[in-house]
Amino acid sequence: MKNRITDLFNIKYPIIQGGMIWVSGWKLASAVSNAGGLGLLGAGSMSPDVLREHILKCKKATDKPFGVNVPMLYSHIEEIMDVIVEEEVKIVFTSAGNPSVWTTRLKDKGITVVHVVSNLRFAIKSQNAGVDAIVAEGFEAGGHNGREETTSIVLVPTLKEQITVPIIAAGGIYSGKSMLAMMILGAEGVQIGSRFAVAVESSAHENYKKEVLNAGDGDTYLTLKEFAPVRLLKNDFFKELMLKYENNATRSELSELLGRGRSKKGMFEGIVDEGELEIGQVSSLINQIVSSKEIINDIVHEYNDAIKLQIQL
Amino acid sequence: MKNRITDLFNIKYPIIQGGMIWVSGWKLASAVSNAGGLGLLGAGSMSPDVLREHILKCKKATDKPFGVNVPMLYSHIEEIMDVIVEEEVKIVFTSAGNPSVWTTRLKDKGITVVHVVSNLRFAIKSQNAGVDAIVAEGFEAGGHNGREETTSIVLVPTLKEQITVPIIAAGGIYSGKSMLAMMILGAEGVQIGSRFAVAVESSAHENYKKEVLNAGDGDTYLTLKEFAPVRLLKNDFFKELMLKYENNATRSELSELLGRGRSKKGMFEGIVDEGELEIGQVSSLINQIVSSKEIINDIVHEYNDAIKLQIQL
Repeated sequence: MKNRITDLFNIKYPIIQGGMIWVSGWKLASAVSNAGGLGLLGAGSMSPDVLREHILKCKKATDKPFGVNVPMLYSHIEEIMDVIVEEEVKIVFTSAGNPSVWTTRLKDKGITVVHVVSNLRFAIKSQNAGVDAIVAEGFEAGGHNGREETTSIVLVPTLKEQITVPIIAAGGIYSGKSMLAMMILGAEGVQIGSRFAVAVESSAHENYKKEVLNAGDGDTYLTLKEFAPVRLLKNDFFKELMLKYENNATRSELSELLGRGRSKKGMFEGIVDEGELEIGQVSSLINQIVSSKEIINDIVHEYNDAIKLQIQL
Repeated sequence: MKNRITDLFNIKYPIIQGGMIWVSGWKLASAVSNAGGLGLLGAGSMSPDVLREHILKCKKATDKPFGVNVPMLYSHIEEIMDVIVEEEVKIVFTSAGNPSVWTTRLKDKGITVVHVVSNLRFAIKSQNAGVDAIVAEGFEAGGHNGREETTSIVLVPTLKEQITVPIIAAGGIYSGKSMLAMMILGAEGVQIGSRFAVAVESSAHENYKKEVLNAGDGDTYLTLKEFAPVRLLKNDFFKELMLKYENNATRSELSELLGRGRSKKGMFEGIVDEGELEIGQVSSLINQIVSSKEIINDIVHEYNDAIKLQIQL
């Protein structure tokens, strides 16, 4: 599996674990990195102090490369980036914002920079800003997502036609076969979220993990498009939200219902009726809580088997 | 490429041309069948008499198998089915409705029946109704689409886990690589719409074809969800529609704007500002008007090359 992505990060398999809020702490990131993938800490739900603690613990737990995902809309962005530089993190994935703002500043410190995009325009912008790789995140992905609603099998070849830096596909990938499908379309790596969200080492609450395991076909939906579009499980909170939409609620009424800390409540505190439960469409295909090592071994095994099957065609 | 789908239809390649309204007349269907795929007439925009004419012309233009796509919400459904039986069409794809209603009646006449679904529940229902194959149509597909918004790379493996009849993937497929990606995920055939919509033999208006060729990343959107969700190009009519939504238009105001014959106006008469322009997300990846034969040869060639590339991995 050696390619530009394994070379860039110095990892064994081109499998990246998404740096998800409330899910991706040091336990998950180090377990993924130890298993030969690239683990990412999710700074989006961490204060600068908490992030520093996770970086230090992650360094103790693995001698392999790991990184941090930073949503650029984050309020403490300057302090977060200071912590990353001070603690000598070598890899940063930026998301939800303009790649021009931070890429040069991070690269000047010797940091490998990857930006997450959902459309071609931002992919070109990212490449021009000097990123080392791009994550192409499709509509089927969990959590925050793009307004174009382009799905992975369209987005990856669209970017591949115009972009020269390596592309990491995200959204809808959970198995060796789905990884191979994305590699055929031009990706050189995959970023997997939902499956790691329910890994043994995920810091999400057990109640949230159970809801994800129970999710079936059609049980997620991309909503709150007036704010930042987000894919959620259809729980009680979601239904309350849909009722507001049916009654033509104003933006401020929606904002009031949303309130603060909904995702923490649902994903970290396990109050699954009231909280926001971010997860991808592939939740319907995920039925087991296993270790990150098992997830990666399973994906690599199925990937190699699927290639052998093609040879027989 | 011999498999259950090529056997079922007695065709060379498991490539089916979607039976699209205003696009899929006898010229397109016969050209696709002559090139080794399966051509489908789109009955959704034909009166029973017009359909009969197209069936007769298609029979003259090819001695290969072809079929008819019938949206089951069609008002003249009984007469349409009578024409199909009288003219001894051997293959029917039903869509947009309940598979229980027509499957047995058609199968009793010796007709091969395929139903188009966008979720697992209807796939199971179709299989129980006795269909010979299922089209799994993802969110990225053009025209009418499912409410679950499940994308092809999630829908195909979801069905594959629970369905034993062969699955034909649809939505987001335009190339040999995207076909191979779907086959790896469990499909045994692909249904391609958008690329054939701009084929030389497509009966769509040249103005519509030009709009499709010019479409870029993010230029389609799934809308009109209060009625039947439909993926459209973002033309002037679409923008007018979005304005209505922004102003919280009622269902009847939307219905009034929509009026009648919008898709005919846009796709067949070529009044591209005022009409509905149905097309899939892959329109951004389609840049040429070529013959159906060239499309199929190109896909088969790229498919075989992509397999060889995997062998080298």
